[in-house]
Amino acid sequence: MISWKDKLVIIDMKLQHSTERKQTSKEIYRQACGVIPGGVSRNTVYRRPNPDYVANASGCYVTDIEGVQRVDFANNMAALIHGHAHPAIVDAVTEQLKKGTAYTLASEVEVRFAQLLNERAPGFEKIRFVNSGTEAVMAMIKASRAYTNRPKIAKAEGAYHGTYDFAEISQTANPTNWGDIKKPNSVPLANSTPQGVLNDVIIFPYNDIEKTIAILDAHADQIACVLIDPVPHRVGLLKGTNEFIEALYQWTRKNDALLVFDEVVTLRVNYGGAQENFSIKPDLTALGKIIGGGFPVGAIAGRSEVMKVLDPSELKIRFPHSGTFSANPITMTAGYVAMDLFDKAAVLKINALAQKAIMQIEQAIKIAEVSISITGAGSMFRIHPKKTPPKTYREAYQSNVEKSIINELLDYLYYKENIMMINTCACMFSTIISQKEVDVLAEAMLNGFKLIKPKLDKLQTN
Amino acid sequence: MISWKDKLVIIDMKLQHSTERKQTSKEIYRQACGVIPGGVSRNTVYRRPNPDYVANASGCYVTDIEGVQRVDFANNMAALIHGHAHPAIVDAVTEQLKKGTAYTLASEVEVRFAQLLNERAPGFEKIRFVNSGTEAVMAMIKASRAYTNRPKIAKAEGAYHGTYDFAEISQTANPTNWGDIKKPNSVPLANSTPQGVLNDVIIFPYNDIEKTIAILDAHADQIACVLIDPVPHRVGLLKGTNEFIEALYQWTRKNDALLVFDEVVTLRVNYGGAQENFSIKPDLTALGKIIGGGFPVGAIAGRSEVMKVLDPSELKIRFPHSGTFSANPITMTAGYVAMDLFDKAAVLKINALAQKAIMQIEQAIKIAEVSISITGAGSMFRIHPKKTPPKTYREAYQSNVEKSIINELLDYLYYKENIMMINTCACMFSTIISQKEVDVLAEAMLNGFKLIKPKLDKLQTN
Repeated sequence: MISWKDKLVIIDMKLQHSTERKQTSKEIYRQACGVIPGGVSRNTVYRRPNPDYVANASGCYVTDIEGVQRVDFANNMAALIHGHAHPAIVDAVTEQLKKGTAYTLASEVEVRFAQLLNERAPGFEKIRFVNSGTEAVMAMIKASRAYTNRPKIAKAEGAYHGTYDFAEISQTANPTNWGDIKKPNSVPLANSTPQGVLNDVIIFPYNDIEKTIAILDAHADQIACVLIDPVPHRVGLLKGTNEFIEALYQWTRKNDALLVFDEVVTLRVNYGGAQENFSIKPDLTALGKIIGGGFPVGAIAGRSEVMKVLDPSELKIRFPHSGTFSANPITMTAGYVAMDLFDKAAVLKINALAQKAIMQIEQAIKIAEVSISITGAGSMFRIHPKKTPPKTYREAYQSNVEKSIINELLDYLYYKENIMMINTCACMFSTIISQKEVDVLAEAMLNGFKLIKPKLDKLQTN
Repeated sequence: MISWKDKLVIIDMKLQHSTERKQTSKEIYRQACGVIPGGVSRNTVYRRPNPDYVANASGCYVTDIEGVQRVDFANNMAALIHGHAHPAIVDAVTEQLKKGTAYTLASEVEVRFAQLLNERAPGFEKIRFVNSGTEAVMAMIKASRAYTNRPKIAKAEGAYHGTYDFAEISQTANPTNWGDIKKPNSVPLANSTPQGVLNDVIIFPYNDIEKTIAILDAHADQIACVLIDPVPHRVGLLKGTNEFIEALYQWTRKNDALLVFDEVVTLRVNYGGAQENFSIKPDLTALGKIIGGGFPVGAIAGRSEVMKVLDPSELKIRFPHSGTFSANPITMTAGYVAMDLFDKAAVLKINALAQKAIMQIEQAIKIAEVSISITGAGSMFRIHPKKTPPKTYREAYQSNVEKSIINELLDYLYYKENIMMINTCACMFSTIISQKEVDVLAEAMLNGFKLIKPKLDKLQTN
């Protein structure tokens, strides 16, 4: 048998194969379609005629194998708070790599990281790590059921909470199926979602206190938890109002249910997450994205009394839970460094720059004389093809024409201005972005707005 | 603000804190209990009075912070096919790290890795990557529903398939709740699992053709898929018989259902997974563990026609699915190197050594005159406190006394012989293990068998 060193040389050659042959992204994508459904591993990176393949990325710049360098305002769907290949993370992970990536024993860094995260928000009394935001929300829902002895959850129409079926009901509800706003339908995302799942998910309209409370009241003794993203991206990147969150909190206190937050995306909004904006504390919070320092991660944090359902030292474990790669020392190390660097000063700085970007884009909107609005919080914002900022999911919902205009804008920014954004036309900043890139973005937006103005005007006068 | 370089020095100091102060595992665990429920991130690493914390690991040896070095036969719950910090994986990942760990674009290595894996088994026509075995099984079940337009799944009593609630029904069924073997109960794992979930999971007895077919027949038009682990660890690490698997296959053909395999653990059994042993091909297969090269991973592979439910280029996506960290280039790179090294010769070699180990342990059983049996396949085996190898989950099920005897054996091996095994008393080999470690294991087993013999004899004559 040949040695692993010889094998490695061969593997290196294989993996460099296409660069030697100078294959294009188009050619690689053609090969991808032969082995991967639709050629992509994540629907979010799907792009016609083909996605581009990355050669390397550094800071806020991503270079594809054609040599095109783009400014990255997507940051792997908001997951990279310090951009790409931050030297502090690369150094720390390189050191840990030599000591192993996963054991059937514990590692100290998981304890240090737990301490670091729990310190950020008063509601984070105990924490458990998992491997993705999807796993975090699933664990949070299961923990809520196990603690309350109830089966149902309530969630907002249009809100994205990962791919656990209970969490994804009504994520893409549309005018043909969403029903009466006073009692929105539970709309399945995946084909043949079991009826039992639909029955156990109660849908309410985000930020509408009166209707939401009436809907919750109708299932009061069955609801384990009310699940809220405090700035839900797919609902419209709208901030939850103080009054709405407070009303949900009071309702859950009165009805022995839990209030649980999905802060997988929004933890970045303040040092202690978007929940810092409210006077109340959620019982549980799902985390993910930025806390992994660029590696697969998720977590649930919350009240000790509730988190006890996970405790393996209990006589009866109410929610037995494990995971082969949970709290692996690579993710913990990268996450520790990333979150330690994302301190209060860093949060203030990134938020200030994002707000500056919004101001510059608002100026571009004025100059281009387009009816476009912006929503967001902290280091995140989203562009809407709407005259006034949407206040609800149904207002933010885009018609096919609106979607095609936004896609034209995104394509223009991507192909002509070399700017990467999230496919909802949103930016999620990294700390590596500077005024220079913001100026590039605002200028590009202005050009893009001018491009789509005729279609937008035509649509909006109709 | 201080620079990241200065910050990194501070972070390094923080993370080295305990080693400088020479904290013990006991002390770290006490701190862990303050921030993590029960002090552990995974129930599998829970151990009284405390888990040990790893300082570093290399090859088949793990050293804890007390300086104790142990031989690792657990390999992070069967996930590390080449043991710890394999230099080829460390080198390849170190290179990728500098280019970034995750993008909102595609990367070529995901295509190369897809090609490499699909080549291993004829049933792997298309593949999609996710972040864990749990996510893989969840995606496989959702894909089955989306393809067949049916809500229910059927699974074996006692089988472990990750933490998606539909997949974990009856995983720990016991004599007080498992019911009639002709129609086993759907037993929840987590507290307050919704009744709808229990209703949609049909439980059958593994390897019992007649009863299983009768059970399936009773729900024939509702079953989306029959979910099978071909060598289910928690059922007893029993091989699925040819007749059983063939019968399930024929039943699914006749009833328009899918036969789906969970090979998260068992892919290691042959070059093409445990499915290589059967004449039939499953429609879908869930993968995980070893294919990540030590990093968080999962995948589903299967027939193109079925996998098409995931295809984002379809007009209507039947199963919309994404994931922030899915197919990230670090996991893909580590996985590529690991699986390329785990070639046909490597599979034969590891399996031969594991079979040698079983022979040596069987000799130890004879010498110690204990009634102990061994089950397993390929590079995996499990020790049972039973005179004859169990043939069903209910036979393999251990009473509290049997469990306490096995725990005494495991504790003896861990603390006195410095041997790490999986907590079911199972070994999952890595390619780095040699005859030397097998000799150590067999000798240690002999000593352990002598230790537990009086209690075992007493139990078995009762």
